[in-house]
Amino acid sequence: MAGRVVRNIERAEASVIDGLAACGVATVHEAQGRIGLLASHMRPIYPGARVAGSAVTISAPPGDNWMIHVAIEQVQAGDILVLAPTSPCEDGYFGDLLATSAQARGCRGLVIDAGVRDVRDLTRMGFPVWSKAVFAQGTVKATLGAVNVPIICAHAAIAPGDVIVADDDGVCVVRRADAAAVLAAARAREANEEAKRRRLAAGELGLDIYDMRGRLAALGLTYE
Amino acid sequence: MAGRVVRNIERAEASVIDGLAACGVATVHEAQGRIGLLASHMRPIYPGARVAGSAVTISAPPGDNWMIHVAIEQVQAGDILVLAPTSPCEDGYFGDLLATSAQARGCRGLVIDAGVRDVRDLTRMGFPVWSKAVFAQGTVKATLGAVNVPIICAHAAIAPGDVIVADDDGVCVVRRADAAAVLAAARAREANEEAKRRRLAAGELGLDIYDMRGRLAALGLTYE
Amino acid sequence: MAGRVVRNIERAEASVIDGLAACGVATVHEAQGRIGLLASHMRPIYPGARVAGSAVTISAPPGDNWMIHVAIEQVQAGDILVLAPTSPCEDGYFGDLLATSAQARGCRGLVIDAGVRDVRDLTRMGFPVWSKAVFAQGTVKATLGAVNVPIICAHAAIAPGDVIVADDDGVCVVRRADAAAVLAAARAREANEEAKRRRLAAGELGLDIYDMRGRLAALGLTYE
Amino acid sequence: MAGRVVRNIERAEASVIDGLAACGVATVHEAQGRIGLLASHMRPIYPGARVAGSAVTISAPPGDNWMIHVAIEQVQAGDILVLAPTSPCEDGYFGDLLATSAQARGCRGLVIDAGVRDVRDLTRMGFPVWSKAVFAQGTVKATLGAVNVPIICAHAAIAPGDVIVADDDGVCVVRRADAAAVLAAARAREANEEAKRRRLAAGELGLDIYDMRGRLAALGLTYE
Amino acid sequence: MAGRVVRNIERAEASVIDGLAACGVATVHEAQGRIGLLASHMRPIYPGARVAGSAVTISAPPGDNWMIHVAIEQVQAGDILVLAPTSPCEDGYFGDLLATSAQARGCRGLVIDAGVRDVRDLTRMGFPVWSKAVFAQGTVKATLGAVNVPIICAHAAIAPGDVIVADDDGVCVVRRADAAAVLAAARAREANEEAKRRRLAAGELGLDIYDMRGRLAALGLTYE
Amino acid sequence: MAGRVVRNIERAEASVIDGLAACGVATVHEAQGRIGLLASHMRPIYPGARVAGSAVTISAPPGDNWMIHVAIEQVQAGDILVLAPTSPCEDGYFGDLLATSAQARGCRGLVIDAGVRDVRDLTRMGFPVWSKAVFAQGTVKATLGAVNVPIICAHAAIAPGDVIVADDDGVCVVRRADAAAVLAAARAREANEEAKRRRLAAGELGLDIYDMRGRLAALGLTYE
Repeated sequence: MAGRVVRNIERAEASVIDGLAACGVATVHEAQGRIGLLASHMRPIYPGARVAGSAVTISAPPGDNWMIHVAIEQVQAGDILVLAPTSPCEDGYFGDLLATSAQARGCRGLVIDAGVRDVRDLTRMGFPVWSKAVFAQGTVKATLGAVNVPIICAHAAIAPGDVIVADDDGVCVVRRADAAAVLAAARAREANEEAKRRRLAAGELGLDIYDMRGRLAALGLTYE
Repeated sequence: MAGRVVRNIERAEASVIDGLAACGVATVHEAQGRIGLLASHMRPIYPGARVAGSAVTISAPPGDNWMIHVAIEQVQAGDILVLAPTSPCEDGYFGDLLATSAQARGCRGLVIDAGVRDVRDLTRMGFPVWSKAVFAQGTVKATLGAVNVPIICAHAAIAPGDVIVADDDGVCVVRRADAAAVLAAARAREANEEAKRRRLAAGELGLDIYDMRGRLAALGLTYE
Repeated sequence: MAGRVVRNIERAEASVIDGLAACGVATVHEAQGRIGLLASHMRPIYPGARVAGSAVTISAPPGDNWMIHVAIEQVQAGDILVLAPTSPCEDGYFGDLLATSAQARGCRGLVIDAGVRDVRDLTRMGFPVWSKAVFAQGTVKATLGAVNVPIICAHAAIAPGDVIVADDDGVCVVRRADAAAVLAAARAREANEEAKRRRLAAGELGLDIYDMRGRLAALGLTYE
Repeated sequence: MAGRVVRNIERAEASVIDGLAACGVATVHEAQGRIGLLASHMRPIYPGARVAGSAVTISAPPGDNWMIHVAIEQVQAGDILVLAPTSPCEDGYFGDLLATSAQARGCRGLVIDAGVRDVRDLTRMGFPVWSKAVFAQGTVKATLGAVNVPIICAHAAIAPGDVIVADDDGVCVVRRADAAAVLAAARAREANEEAKRRRLAAGELGLDIYDMRGRLAALGLTYE
Repeated sequence: MAGRVVRNIERAEASVIDGLAACGVATVHEAQGRIGLLASHMRPIYPGARVAGSAVTISAPPGDNWMIHVAIEQVQAGDILVLAPTSPCEDGYFGDLLATSAQARGCRGLVIDAGVRDVRDLTRMGFPVWSKAVFAQGTVKATLGAVNVPIICAHAAIAPGDVIVADDDGVCVVRRADAAAVLAAARAREANEEAKRRRLAAGELGLDIYDMRGRLAALGLTYE
Repeated sequence: MAGRVVRNIERAEASVIDGLAACGVATVHEAQGRIGLLASHMRPIYPGARVAGSAVTISAPPGDNWMIHVAIEQVQAGDILVLAPTSPCEDGYFGDLLATSAQARGCRGLVIDAGVRDVRDLTRMGFPVWSKAVFAQGTVKATLGAVNVPIICAHAAIAPGDVIVADDDGVCVVRRADAAAVLAAARAREANEEAKRRRLAAGELGLDIYDMRGRLAALGLTYE
């Protein structure tokens, strides 16, 4: 797989992508049947970011960030870089210079199952990163990886052009072909939740709203 | 144990609970003889919260949040929900809808040795959570657990009605029967510390204030 | 080694130390050949601090903070306390009283491969700490350790008087004797990076600025 | 709690204890309703040991093994030492000399949520240990702990005199008062399993033996 | 995805599968371009097993082993069960009864990114398991998962019918369609290695056999 | 530091090295004042090995095993290879071919704070390895490291020519210059322990042999 760069990838509709960002990770994850979530060790470097974008994927050797330079050339406005090392690594593949370059091309953020550095600068730039570690450890540029090939990143399978949704809850991937349908389901879920939220805020119990008492009793729940 | 909900639990005095909150985790932990601390992986979802409340305990199967609905009915104003999964789990048992419901009933927060989601919303709501993970992973409602039974949560034994104290340092539990005495000890400790703080701030050394030099020398400490 | 306190340690020039702080961890780490970085588990208790100082080192038994009192007497204005437990430990060795004492003597912060507590107070005081854990667990004063001896802290070798640089990216150590040269190299690197940052911000690619295309092609990178 | 040694503890019947050993951890854990299991990080230092005994509990400070000497005096033939450090620690509290002493008094093994050393000697002696780590790190004798008080060990609550069952699957605790009933349930389970084992070995499916097909279909399981 | 059982999956040639087993994990992993390896936390419950088989995949909720019963019906002689929980879990999904059933149908082993129990019995039966944990924790049968759908198991993407190779080094997956080609490459690699092994055993250096000295010198390696 | 190979290193006396091996890790660690122990994650790939040798040190980039070839040329009979990656890594740097080469030159084993593979073959060859992981993941040969420079390996500082002692308890390093003195201390300790072992085996208590009762009582230990 190493040594390949795929240049033409398909992307979802911009309006669909932005709609998914507005729904957020938890809602999108639920709306698509509880799949696509990246592992919980993927944390944002600062709170409050909520983005979605098309995945430009990177498979990189441990401690080698060369392919990020290759990938940035493939970035279009609205994309998110997604890097998976070929074996576990927490080195700082990405810092403020790469962020400057990526941001100049319209990149909306980075998802990396490894380390990131210069987080003070990235925070100031408003360039969000979800990573496994914050670590200043430098990397080399010696061995080929691949760009825009399918990867496994933080336990999730991600294809180039899939929609990445990321916020304070973590990161979720939506298959490109499913994006519009997932957005519709996510919005339906939001509408449904809004009504419930009002009832719950008024003091009604989930036990009653969801009509759970009978099933709980049938399974043997007893009150003492 | 599964299948039981205990409805009538005893709680400590409200003034004692609030007094413990004001003392904070580190002081309370010391005041009661360095016991009752939950493991260091229990971290707040946002900085600055400092609360205390009576534990409404939940024992829940991995990946199953049904019992939280059952528990919320048992919540009184001033309580804190405390959930321990029956085996290690980091799924997102709790999000903004449950927080809305809990908050409507006067719940002061959640302590969960598992995951939480919608943390952006919870932060906005001012509903504090101490958890093992932030993770959007959805859960099911299929298997019974128990409410208001003794649990082990993050290495600490917690009985229903025990006082939970939580702040940026983590979470501590005080047995209900000991709460008033612990508060008295904590306040005495604070008073004692205040005097020391002033001396230390003025440049005096702990070596002198605590009269340590002799004992250090006796054990063989040598200065080069 | 236990039982020794070294009183007279050499320190780097204050201007060099302050210069290194301004450069930050990632730049200093690169400038000295990618060495000296402490492990990624060393995280700041609050964002935004950026300091440098001379290491006053502490080797302490697990769960025993006695030597911190001994070390504070050795602190001069501009120093940073650096504590390595003699075996893995996450207890809260350090809190607001010790911080008050250290700050009164001009200490700029603490680097500890263990736990810290009272982080709300430390944040308010502006006393920065980089630690492995936030944990209120109390410690004893029963067994000797050592002060100002060489230690291994979070995988890095640190000698007393070495320069500690710490910011949101973590912690890096610079050998005292190398400090001036490393500062010069760090500043040269910054100057060099500034030019590149402008070109990258203007949309030029790293592939071109660093002239990478030929070498990538020679290794077999293919575009599809 | 520190500083207490309880001398007279009650123990379960020897025949019940030995019966539980023969059933093994998984069966006992199931027979008592899936409770009492210690965390999965508790691993045996050599394969093949299967023991049960009455818990002589030890609460010890991190890196301090003094209380083991105190505890050994309390050991009767058939007991198992169970040590929980007061905060996470992996030091080598126990080695061949302590094992020699414990074995001389009839101790059947050690369960320790910390480290052990001299494992080659312990293996040769046939003294089984379940621990969190194998680590030669030495400990001190400076601070009091407690013997035969209730402890939390590897996430399980253990009282002195409770029955410890340990084998290649890990460690389980049975409350002393429940031991006879749990043994009866465990034996019933074994008898029941034996019949099923024969049917499964003959090629019958669990789907049929346990009559699962209808419920699976009702929940919507579909075959393609 | 939950609720689906795919009955007819394609499998690789038996001779190819057995050939891959004989080559072992490290060789197969190299022969297919260093892909397909499961994470290093997947360890065998006993040393010495070396197997290959066709993957019958299972996606199961945390703490719910119902789908294993469903999957065993789909097992043919020569298959290996591969289970990925839908979120991180270390419960003991599998023990001696399920192993008896699986073995009766010709199953060659289990690969599970979760826990296993009854390892003493499994060892005696010669039923190999590679797992994340040994843990007796019981599971329920309440929620549907899926059988023979694509899964991510321990960071690797596995489709039903892919070839699983497992030995003391861990677990590797080979795509079914690539199996014959990978076997050929693995055997070529073995032949090539045999010659090198003899030269190395005779004292020749890799530096000379692989002609590395020039390239090392060109990069600046210096001998002191 | 990268790019350097130091050819002439000093080694300790062969008889001293062999004497240290016979004493074992725990005794040597104690004899030199409880220093020099590598972290507890360094585990042997098979039980029963007990070796000592002179360290030939390797600093290698993550995922790059080139320097092992360079290091093997520097090995003399009786040496042990010690590899520390420049950042955390668990790739399989070393397998049966390298072991064949190292063994041909008299190398006694490998200590590696990363991964190893072909462990079945290494076990058969009797080539012991202490590692952080068993992992088949392949490595590249692209970037220089260093041989026979001081390294930090698994939290311990190791200089070329230092004596490595390794057995089932883990790994310990003894500074070359201290080796003879440490051996003497270790043997004295063994002699001293032998007498105590006999008394303990006869049923005497450590409480009495070490005369602990008075000091325990003075600190307040109370028997109930």
